[in-house]
Order: sequence, then C-alpha cells, then structure tokens
Amino acid sequence: MSENTDPPRLLVLGGDPDAPGDVPPPDLDRLAGRARVRYVDEKSLADSLPTADALLVWDFASDAVRHAWPGPGPRPGWVHTASAGVDRLLACPELVASDTVITNARGIFDQPIAEYTAGLVLALAKDFHGSWELQRQRRWRHRETVRISGTHAIVVGSGPIGRAIGRTLLALGVEVELVGRRERDDDPEFEKVHAADSLHDLLPTADWVVCAAPLTPRTAGMFDAAAFSRMRRGARFVNVGRGAHVVQEDLVRALLSRHLGGAALDVFADEPLPADSPLWDVPGLLVSPHMSGDTVGWRDDLARQFRENFDRWAAGEPLLNVVDKQLGYVPDRSAR
Amino acid sequence: MSENTDPPRLLVLGGDPDAPGDVPPPDLDRLAGRARVRYVDEKSLADSLPTADALLVWDFASDAVRHAWPGPGPRPGWVHTASAGVDRLLACPELVASDTVITNARGIFDQPIAEYTAGLVLALAKDFHGSWELQRQRRWRHRETVRISGTHAIVVGSGPIGRAIGRTLLALGVEVELVGRRERDDDPEFEKVHAADSLHDLLPTADWVVCAAPLTPRTAGMFDAAAFSRMRRGARFVNVGRGAHVVQEDLVRALLSRHLGGAALDVFADEPLPADSPLWDVPGLLVSPHMSGDTVGWRDDLARQFRENFDRWAAGEPLLNVVDKQLGYVPDRSAR
Repeated sequence: MSENTDPPRLLVLGGDPDAPGDVPPPDLDRLAGRARVRYVDEKSLADSLPTADALLVWDFASDAVRHAWPGPGPRPGWVHTASAGVDRLLACPELVASDTVITNARGIFDQPIAEYTAGLVLALAKDFHGSWELQRQRRWRHRETVRISGTHAIVVGSGPIGRAIGRTLLALGVEVELVGRRERDDDPEFEKVHAADSLHDLLPTADWVVCAAPLTPRTAGMFDAAAFSRMRRGARFVNVGRGAHVVQEDLVRALLSRHLGGAALDVFADEPLPADSPLWDVPGLLVSPHMSGDTVGWRDDLARQFRENFDRWAAGEPLLNVVDKQLGYVPDRSAR
Repeated sequence: MSENTDPPRLLVLGGDPDAPGDVPPPDLDRLAGRARVRYVDEKSLADSLPTADALLVWDFASDAVRHAWPGPGPRPGWVHTASAGVDRLLACPELVASDTVITNARGIFDQPIAEYTAGLVLALAKDFHGSWELQRQRRWRHRETVRISGTHAIVVGSGPIGRAIGRTLLALGVEVELVGRRERDDDPEFEKVHAADSLHDLLPTADWVVCAAPLTPRTAGMFDAAAFSRMRRGARFVNVGRGAHVVQEDLVRALLSRHLGGAALDVFADEPLPADSPLWDVPGLLVSPHMSGDTVGWRDDLARQFRENFDRWAAGEPLLNVVDKQLGYVPDRSAR
C-alpha cells in the first residue's frame, strides 16, 4: 500500500517506546527515512494491518496475529517474527494460505539454547537441585552423581538449535543421536539423522532425551505416555522446544511413578505458567520461565537481524530465513 | 616386617566391612593369599602402624594418619590414598621426611570434576539457582542470562584435574588460561601455562576463576581479599580444590559487597560444613558437599587403581602416581 515516493509502512507489534513495560527493538530508529514505523498493540493490530507493507512481530509471545489476520482488506506482504518458532503465526490458516512471506530469527538462539540445555543436563546429572535444597536446610549429605561422558542423548530437532545442542553435548563426551523429520545419512556433522518415525525405537537407548523441535501438527504432543514409557527407567527429559510438544499430565505421571529420573521444562502449554499450575512442585521437575535462548544482548541481536532483512526487503533482494509455511520452519540448506 | 614366606601386611584405614556405615573398598578380597589385610579405624591405626608393610588410606577424609604416624617403631614403606589431594598426609612432617613412598588416586577424578565444574559455570551463567528459588515461590520471572561462549576463564591448577576442566570449558567455547606452579610455553594442549606468581595480573581478565590446585604451603589461602579485589566486578569464583585455598571470610565479603557476581564451593576448610556455618546462606554462594569427583562407580575405580599399584608393589615394580613430597603432588610427566 506504500506510494512510490513514500517509504514503506512498517508495523511493529509490541515494543512501543511509549508503553510502560514494553521493551522496544534496539536501534529501530536507524530505519528513519526508510520506513514509516508504527507501533501497535494486540488491540490496535487488526485495524492497522490493511495499511501495512510489513509487520515485525516483536512481541513474539503474543497470539494477536492469529486473531487479527483474518479480515477484509490487504495484508502486509512480509511478516518477520523475533523468534525461532513460528507456530503462533502458522496457527492462522489465512496467513498460511496467503502470499505473505514469513521470516524468523533463525540462528540467534542456537548457541544460547545449546548452553542452557547442556547446563540442564549437567544440573540433572550432578543433582545441583538436590544440593541447593540441602543447602537451604544446612545439611551436608554427600551423594554419588552421574558422569555424563559416555552417556547417550537423543536430540529431537535437527534444525540449527537441535544441531547446536547436539554439538555441545558431543563436546562434553555424550553420544548424540539427532532426530529430524526424515532420515538422512549424509549429515556433515552427525553422519546420520534419524526419522521422527523411528523415535520410539530409539528412546530405550537414551539416558537423555531433549526436545528442540519446531512445533508443527506432526510434532505436537509427541512426548506422551507412550513415548515416556519407551524411555529407560531413570532416564531424563528436557524440553526447550514448545510446551505443546509434551502431554504435560503424562510427563507428570512418568515422574511421579519414578519411571523417569528427572525432567526440566523451559516451555509450557500455558505461558506464563499460572501460579496454581501443578507443574511448579512435581518432584524431580525443574521449571524455568522460557528463557533458554535469552542471553544478555539477545534483543540487540534480534533487532540487528531484522534490520538486515529489512535492508534486503527494501532493496528487493531475497530475504533471509524464509519459513516454509508447509513444513513450519526454515528448511536447512545443508539438509537439502 | 613381613616374613619372607608370609604375604605382606596391608593396613586399610576405614572401609571395615564389619563397621556400620563404612563403605569397604570393592573387591579387595582379590588380594586374598597375597596380602594379610587388616582394617583399622582412627583409634587403632597408631598401634597397628609398626607391623604394617603398606597402608591404604581408604577413608581419605580422615586426619588419623597425621596424628598416628609420629611414634616409635617401624612404619609402612608405602602409603596409598584414595584421593587426588595428599595435603592431609603431607601435613605430617615425619611422614614427609621418611622414606615411605606415597601414591594417590591421580586420574580417577579428572573427568567427573571437569563436568561438575562446567555444570557449575553454566548454572551460575544461567542462574539455575534463581529459577529454582522462583519455582519454589511459583513465580514466573523471565531474566536474561549470560552466554558463556566467548567468556574468559582462569583455571588455577595445571595438573590432570585442572587440565580436564580447561579442556571441557574450551569445548564450550570459553577462552581458558591455565595457571600452574611455573610458567611454560610449550604446553601441548594449552600452549601457555601461566606461573602462579602472575595470577594477580591475570585475574582482572576473567569472567570465571576456578581453583583446582593441589593444596600446598604455596597455594593455601591464595584466594584472599587481595585476589578477589583483582577480579572483575560481577566475575564468579568456583572452588573444587581444597577449602584452605580460600580465605572464607574474604570470599563472603566479596559476595556481600556484590563485587563478585557469584561463587560455588564444593570444598571447605571444615568438612562436613557445620550446620551453624555462616556459609550456608550467603547470597550468591552455592554450597555442595565435596562431591564434585564422586560419580557412580568411583569406589570401584579407586579400588581397581589401588589393586593395580598393589600388584606392582608386590612384584617390586615401580609404583604409579608417586607423589613428590616436596611439591605436594604427582609431577605431570608432560610438564617435565
């Protein structure tokens, strides 16, 4: 809808500098003169969509796009989300069916999430949680812990986040099997990538199962009672993907029955996790508030990445990190 | 004192199979017929020493040897301790001055302690402790955490434990400087090893300072107010060496003043840490009960290592892991 002589209209969902509590995208003023930037919130999004050329979903935890997108009038031709997962956007069939190009924050979170996951694996292996609980009670109680070198991990998700996790665990001496959508045996780093279909055959071999998959109709609920029962007694589960990958009640049961030796969740079906959720105090379950990828400077990195794509878009060049709306993620070039 | 035809007399301090609470050395009965094994406790050690050919210090946390060693009569010619540190034995001048050979458990704890330390570094970087405190309160509070890749660590201790720690942190993308007794620039893995003399010059560069040194008169108290003040504001300290490396009050002050961003201690001047110690609840201080090296199977590994040395000793072959009683540790062949 931009006139030939006017700069394009960029809508930014969230991050309004004038809204208390919002954290604006750093250095967005660098687009001054090249974009007409307008901040919107969940309420004003719907009215603004028909006049926008592009939409930056800065508040990536919002479901507003899904609700606002269907409706009369034109829609932006490009939507960029400041997140790796695009499940909230793809939950809108009208957006999926449209010609609108979706790009994401692929790459920004890989190393941070890999570190966080390795930290959780080590924390579970070394029972840090138990030590700090004993510290609160001023009790000295020596225990034997698990050596992770030589143990076996299955990482579900063969995109850049899953690969970074796999690489980091490998560096710690853990044997790693990567699971992706389809099997391939020419992976440059991991040699073989297993097909999701074979997950249940693999699960009994694992000391650690890590979920770092994109959330799609194929992967939703994949960690259910059947999956947990395939896991070895005492094995541990870590989810840094999306809450909906896990059937939460099934995980709770697997922990309460002591079939699983422990679990750590950074993501939940409902976020923020309500104060009355039973998940807060399941024995053996570590809860953190969806922060595995958010290291100091992450917002700068996200804004820089968006500006780079904006420059390409304004110049008519191909965008980076274009999501395959059927697959539900940015296809890995190296996997093609 | 053994007769020519009788098997040698082996004294074992701690681990008496008939003593409640003691954990015996696994598979020591494999020495049947080749050693006359006698278990002693702290009280009976002194009386038994003159008639023993060798002493296995299985209860390595005991100070009994230091107290029992001085006295009349012969002494065992070989003492093996099931620990990496030999500071408790070398605290006995009569043992140091004697011809008795001391060997230790070099090698057993390297990888476990390296994993534990990497876990502590990640736990501090990702504020796991804060997340679990919030979990107890059923509060969802997102925070930004530290990316450890690209940060800078100083590991004090260039023996096998310090090297394993350094190697593991390097694998996580951390830049590592190793500090040993003397400088060398031909290290096969780390290129340069810095001299302990230059520690204060290095400290301001570190995000992480890890103590994994042997406890000797040179290293005792090396982490004092002067050292902590040289550290960068917000930097973190981890001790998996010995409690006496640290002037505990100085560390507490550096934490209370928020000069340090956090610390983790697995070792203490007084162990077990008394219930009334102020260290249990210093903000930012993580306490664990001297267990960094003790992964499942560690006692089997320790016993196997002792039996291997026993075979050598019985055959008159050179022992493995002979401690340099002047240096206070087993000199690293690769560092010679």
